[in-house]
Amino acid sequence: MDFFEAIEKRYSHKERFLPDPVPKEHLESIAKAGLAAPSGNNSQSVKLVILQGRDEIQPLCDIRPTDGLLTAPAVIAVLTDSEAYKTNKYNFEVDDYAAATAQMLLAATALGYSALWLDSPYFEEKEQKAALALLGASDRYYLRVVLPIGLPDGPGSRREKLPFNERVRYGKL
Amino acid sequence: MDFFEAIEKRYSHKERFLPDPVPKEHLESIAKAGLAAPSGNNSQSVKLVILQGRDEIQPLCDIRPTDGLLTAPAVIAVLTDSEAYKTNKYNFEVDDYAAATAQMLLAATALGYSALWLDSPYFEEKEQKAALALLGASDRYYLRVVLPIGLPDGPGSRREKLPFNERVRYGKL
Repeated sequence: MDFFEAIEKRYSHKERFLPDPVPKEHLESIAKAGLAAPSGNNSQSVKLVILQGRDEIQPLCDIRPTDGLLTAPAVIAVLTDSEAYKTNKYNFEVDDYAAATAQMLLAATALGYSALWLDSPYFEEKEQKAALALLGASDRYYLRVVLPIGLPDGPGSRREKLPFNERVRYGKL
Repeated sequence: MDFFEAIEKRYSHKERFLPDPVPKEHLESIAKAGLAAPSGNNSQSVKLVILQGRDEIQPLCDIRPTDGLLTAPAVIAVLTDSEAYKTNKYNFEVDDYAAATAQMLLAATALGYSALWLDSPYFEEKEQKAALALLGASDRYYLRVVLPIGLPDGPGSRREKLPFNERVRYGKL
């Protein structure tokens, strides 16, 4: 798919997915697009865990059932490794995961899938710990977001964006 | 350009740019790609300021001269508006700017340009305040990153990435 077509087609799919599995080679292309994102000092703090099929996904979903996860046939969980910045003055874990996530959502779109940036179920400590345990990750990691990925069961809703002129200026804000 | 070609070709260009100007329609396509990124609760906290030509760019560069900015013919400055999350429990300004920035760097690549995620000159309060003043932004804004954009004067260096298998796992980390 053309780059700008992917930019235009990407949206946050919060509704149901079809049960069709996402082939492993597509999941790997999506993951590679995420790993190709820039990271602070090239630290590459982002780690990914790919989950395929409901047997693997349901336990994560059970921690706090959320629409976007209930029917997804595949999930990429995006974690960051706090060790990546332990000797740095600044920490770029949030910048890193967000750049990688944006690139993965576009890649999923370019391959014809819908996907979602889903972080809210794991904000609180209890859910975060439960999710890390499920994913076999120690507490040096933080689960930033899970990306449900699949073919959409219907067009999905899109939220309106502000006009270009309200967000972009020339020379001065 | 094909989406995955843009993913593969994007790199952080820290070297010189050619003086050729970047047409306004290309800068707007790049800006639009940034605005199309997802944002926390669709808050769209990101604002962009486009600077064209050395007369507009040099004052920003003078705050702290940095290789990537010295020769760039165009710059997109990426700010976030703290008001966007003032009534929210969580603040997603960093997530928002990073997603928008990743999309703009890819868009610049898709149009044949090189670009750079340049945040370090404005980390400290003195430089941050000077840059905000130059950009005509009040202190409710924060300058997150500037993106020098242009045709590269040479191929530019690329940093090595860790192998796929060190960053991606199936089922468990």
